[in-house]
Amino acid sequence: MSKYWSNLVRRLQPYTPGEQPRRSDITKLNTNENPFAPSPSVMAAIQAQLTDDLRLYPPPEADQLKNTIADYFSLRPEQVFLGNGSDEVLAHVFNGLLRKDLPLLFPDITYSFYPVFCQLYDIQFEKIPLTSDLCIDVKDYHRGNGAIIFPNPNAPTGDLLALDAIKALLQSNVDSVVVIDEAYIDFGGVSAVSLINDYPNLLVVQTMSKSRSLAGMRIGYALGSSELIEGLDRVKNSFNSYPLGHLQIAAGIAAFEDKAYFQQTCNQVIQSRTSLTGSLEEIGFEVLPSKGNFVFVRHQHYEAAIVAKKLRDKGIFVRHFDQERIREFLRISVGTEDQHQQLLDTLKNLINQHLMK
Amino acid sequence: MSKYWSNLVRRLQPYTPGEQPRRSDITKLNTNENPFAPSPSVMAAIQAQLTDDLRLYPPPEADQLKNTIADYFSLRPEQVFLGNGSDEVLAHVFNGLLRKDLPLLFPDITYSFYPVFCQLYDIQFEKIPLTSDLCIDVKDYHRGNGAIIFPNPNAPTGDLLALDAIKALLQSNVDSVVVIDEAYIDFGGVSAVSLINDYPNLLVVQTMSKSRSLAGMRIGYALGSSELIEGLDRVKNSFNSYPLGHLQIAAGIAAFEDKAYFQQTCNQVIQSRTSLTGSLEEIGFEVLPSKGNFVFVRHQHYEAAIVAKKLRDKGIFVRHFDQERIREFLRISVGTEDQHQQLLDTLKNLINQHLMK
Repeated sequence: MSKYWSNLVRRLQPYTPGEQPRRSDITKLNTNENPFAPSPSVMAAIQAQLTDDLRLYPPPEADQLKNTIADYFSLRPEQVFLGNGSDEVLAHVFNGLLRKDLPLLFPDITYSFYPVFCQLYDIQFEKIPLTSDLCIDVKDYHRGNGAIIFPNPNAPTGDLLALDAIKALLQSNVDSVVVIDEAYIDFGGVSAVSLINDYPNLLVVQTMSKSRSLAGMRIGYALGSSELIEGLDRVKNSFNSYPLGHLQIAAGIAAFEDKAYFQQTCNQVIQSRTSLTGSLEEIGFEVLPSKGNFVFVRHQHYEAAIVAKKLRDKGIFVRHFDQERIREFLRISVGTEDQHQQLLDTLKNLINQHLMK
Repeated sequence: MSKYWSNLVRRLQPYTPGEQPRRSDITKLNTNENPFAPSPSVMAAIQAQLTDDLRLYPPPEADQLKNTIADYFSLRPEQVFLGNGSDEVLAHVFNGLLRKDLPLLFPDITYSFYPVFCQLYDIQFEKIPLTSDLCIDVKDYHRGNGAIIFPNPNAPTGDLLALDAIKALLQSNVDSVVVIDEAYIDFGGVSAVSLINDYPNLLVVQTMSKSRSLAGMRIGYALGSSELIEGLDRVKNSFNSYPLGHLQIAAGIAAFEDKAYFQQTCNQVIQSRTSLTGSLEEIGFEVLPSKGNFVFVRHQHYEAAIVAKKLRDKGIFVRHFDQERIREFLRISVGTEDQHQQLLDTLKNLINQHLMK
């Protein structure tokens, strides 16, 4: 602790992201990156933007990307908010829309950045326990609140909430902002975007890091009523006028325009998830039903922390959360067929050689 | 005002950046961009990074760029903080280091984002008037304060404070963080970086948007004692784990490695500033001594707001701040020789044809 820090810094407990080792010899199934490369047209678009104009500030509102995203979702540009990755978008959402007198509600098992944002912005919150099978029951959110947020599908469980349940939640919370964090929605879920024009209190947050294979470019966005977006713009314009550079804007536009590639790679991830699920079940794992690009699994015999460590020793990274209720689970990202084979072969070896202890 | 906004959003008055028109037919001298393109090696480095790895998250600490910058300034990597442009860096600085019980001090005429950050983070501040010739006198800062920040050279005046004055300020404020915002330091100023190892309360903020011609890439950084940097890292890691993408990291490294290009383009900007100053003086402008890549000028006969408007009508953008004490001034970025010629020809025509009213 330094005397130069503000009181805020003294009490912060920062978020810990999954490891990002830069070695090429590892099998990286720990941070839910897409196994497929970005669309070739994204590469071409960045290439075309590599000009002397990089000396110039980007358009502060990134209008062209906003227009592209608005068109894609049949919304108006003033219903789109952009940020430097969906974590930045979420940060502004917490500060601008979720900081209320009554507590914010979110699940007890969820994206672990939420309580960190609450610390950063001094937001009271209540964690609502998932059901015994680790699902969200919207009836549990029928209580006094300043706002509500959860991922759909939820992380790290992969559980998808149906649109009817979200509609019910919106109807019973007309005075609260309800944020659906759809980082993983494109892998088999149904987006709440279609409800935006009916519910001015609904904000949908998405990212280009997962289904659009652009984690390395940092592009996130939020979709909602123009009044919610205006609130976010006021926060953004009090923080950083230009969160997205020229290359990010170009990449984002191209990614949305290549619908065929997007559809094809999402479908392949979904198929791979199904086959990975089956293979893991065959060797004694319970696999929760997942609509994300990951599976959340536990083995009937082996401790998750030990499995994670043994895999890591073999160069395979998966994610273990040392946290109540999910300590027995591992989150494994859907990878390539090769990566799955390595994972499964290694697991089988460890099991056969009785090395899981 | 929406009921869904937090109280904070209701009271925010966001920053207004200079206009960023995307037309190619204008002479853009309003936002202090570098007239020279980024170094060719920056382009090559971005190119080389255009790989399938864009699907992967970037290293959250951008270690390689941190190491490069540390080496460049003969500091340790733990003395370097990185952000998505220096506005993001400044935002975290305000939140993490300048939010104290006693008021923050900054000049009355300065970067107009400072009071916006204060609003965003609920920081009390006192504006210290510049001297009658629009300079900072550090003696005016010898009063109770939580922290001090100012740009050096100051913006929009271009006035440079000497290192001795900064040293005196640091010595008389050992319990306060002193932030020197050096966005424009490379155009003829002497950086305070050399004082960092002697003053744990000194933080120097710089940007790659000006002297490194990379406004469109969004890279800023702060340099200081490891305890200040640790405080900033705690804020950053509670906000966004990955503020810089792969291409930003590659561009930043290459820009620092090409010292010759950097030196050459900075020297050319300095020379152009001198010739622009002379030419403007010849047609009746008073030009404040500037160490930035801009000049701050007023005409003996014509109102600044009218000159700005008339220039704009002719496709030439300069910046006018409708603000007490500087309402009579225009800030004109140093551009190319061609741009200067256009500016001067247009001004001469307007003057000769008595059109400045």
